[in-house]
Amino acid sequence: MEAVMRLTKISLEAPYLLYLGDCPDMLHAKTAAGIAHWRPDRCAGQMRLPDCPVDLKLPELTVQGARDAGIKTVVVGVAPMGGRMPGQWLEQLTALAAAGFDIAAGLHTKLVDIPELVAAASKGKAKLIDVRVPPADLPVGDGRLRSGKRVLTVGTDCAVGKKYSALALHRELESRNIKSTFRATGQTGIMIVGEGIPIDSVVADFISGAAEVLSPDNDDDHWDVIEGQGSLLSPSYSGVSLGLLHGSQPDAIILCHDAERTEIDETGGDYPIPELGQVIDDALRMARRIRAQCFCAGVSVNTSSMGDIDRENYLSQLQSELGLPCVDPIATGMTPITDFLLQPA
Amino acid sequence: MEAVMRLTKISLEAPYLLYLGDCPDMLHAKTAAGIAHWRPDRCAGQMRLPDCPVDLKLPELTVQGARDAGIKTVVVGVAPMGGRMPGQWLEQLTALAAAGFDIAAGLHTKLVDIPELVAAASKGKAKLIDVRVPPADLPVGDGRLRSGKRVLTVGTDCAVGKKYSALALHRELESRNIKSTFRATGQTGIMIVGEGIPIDSVVADFISGAAEVLSPDNDDDHWDVIEGQGSLLSPSYSGVSLGLLHGSQPDAIILCHDAERTEIDETGGDYPIPELGQVIDDALRMARRIRAQCFCAGVSVNTSSMGDIDRENYLSQLQSELGLPCVDPIATGMTPITDFLLQPA
Repeated sequence: MEAVMRLTKISLEAPYLLYLGDCPDMLHAKTAAGIAHWRPDRCAGQMRLPDCPVDLKLPELTVQGARDAGIKTVVVGVAPMGGRMPGQWLEQLTALAAAGFDIAAGLHTKLVDIPELVAAASKGKAKLIDVRVPPADLPVGDGRLRSGKRVLTVGTDCAVGKKYSALALHRELESRNIKSTFRATGQTGIMIVGEGIPIDSVVADFISGAAEVLSPDNDDDHWDVIEGQGSLLSPSYSGVSLGLLHGSQPDAIILCHDAERTEIDETGGDYPIPELGQVIDDALRMARRIRAQCFCAGVSVNTSSMGDIDRENYLSQLQSELGLPCVDPIATGMTPITDFLLQPA
Repeated sequence: MEAVMRLTKISLEAPYLLYLGDCPDMLHAKTAAGIAHWRPDRCAGQMRLPDCPVDLKLPELTVQGARDAGIKTVVVGVAPMGGRMPGQWLEQLTALAAAGFDIAAGLHTKLVDIPELVAAASKGKAKLIDVRVPPADLPVGDGRLRSGKRVLTVGTDCAVGKKYSALALHRELESRNIKSTFRATGQTGIMIVGEGIPIDSVVADFISGAAEVLSPDNDDDHWDVIEGQGSLLSPSYSGVSLGLLHGSQPDAIILCHDAERTEIDETGGDYPIPELGQVIDDALRMARRIRAQCFCAGVSVNTSSMGDIDRENYLSQLQSELGLPCVDPIATGMTPITDFLLQPA
């Protein structure tokens, strides 16, 4: 049956209709806002319930309006409380699926486990795409070195800006007319660019194999900018991070950090984040087992808690300690890291 | 339905009937032979097809004989070509399931996907246990330090003796009346001791969480001896290895190696195995992020390709280079490593 077919690669067709339901605030609409921010060209409209206060300033579409706008995929870009699909969203979503629009979501409840949606999608010949479900038949990684260039963001912890930094670097490379592709490894990244593999949902034996599939052979002057996950330091997620590092076989890594973070979040113990130089050394040591010439192209720090003067002091001190470009990807931008990444060998 | 119930922990009740089918030789019966070797007390009999040349020298049981012997679980301890259940095994296995004996296997084809077996198990109120299927509802690891002591075998590669070395160490601890438990992380280990978690089949996000569940809080003088998987050096399986290392939070590691192995097996590239001292340094560096005092208790090498004099030279040279006990777990035994592991801090 079309509606529950297992996809061999996650892929979302644009243009998107961003679905907001009755999302109470911008924080819960982070994914939709990220899509609209990074890929406005993929977003042709929004749909919400009558009382929804969140507004992404996109055209408000009905089912007929979506048809007229040529919408291909309805992207559920909001995180409901508890991760389950609220019943009050179903009327609009089933109408959209029955009208033939693919529905994509990354909720805890899978779309294919909601009978009304499955029936509607079957009627409309629409696909239900759960972006947390990895493609089937991923291979075991084999470590064959691939052509083309790769840069991976690595983190001191979760939620320190690995996705943002990678997207910002990719934008900078595009603005310089350098061939590059953003490779998404998490659900938000996948929704933003329309394809990828949710690496942390893959079965353990296939982590590096999934990363190999994600960034295949390419032109010698093409850069894959790969979204990192977790941290080698994390007692929770280090396995994902090392498998992704090895499968990505990066030519360069960029360390991402949050200046406010002094220890690993959400653990049952006391895990201070070491000196950033040590974190870089550890990551390079592991990375060079596969790609001997891997180097660190810079450090990208969330310094949103600092004033301008503190930020400048912090970044310039870090830069002189490490001998690497150190930036805030929002406040100061990715230009110095991009320059360093592209320097001739 | 009882027969396909999802277990929250893999657990196989003894006594076992080892099922051999029409296994052509000892190599394909490695799992059954391992169970009979390490846990003769769990094995009450064997069953085979008429022409099977493999004989584990256990009592030959019929269904009625299995009843008389008090058999609880039939363990399929042979690897058929291609990993699929041969049709000619089904008559005996369905008869056993219908008679109420649980059936355990680790084949590529899941037992619960074979309708005849499911029907028979339902009739006999028997469980079908696929030891490659991890328990449901594993948590994300949280890194809380647990009481009790732990030692983990780590490897330069796959298939270098991590399971064997751990079982041999566990036997040595038992012979010294030291409280200890072997913790199985792969299907053969699980069948041998009757419980465990197949760590490489767990979803990536839950690797370290599974390792935490596997070796819970224990008495201060109790040792968990944890079976390692893969290698931090492996482009294929390093993610599994790091998640297991962090979740196990070992007090000590034992490096396992095969003296004939000069590069990582089954890769598409050229990955030489570094000096063993470097491999130990890397593993300790990662391990100490979680358990700061982790040390290496020795090196366990498969030297089966060497004569006695070469072995002695090889091990004594390695020992003086590393300043650690270096043994062959079969030829020279685990005694020096056990002594070093138990030395007062």
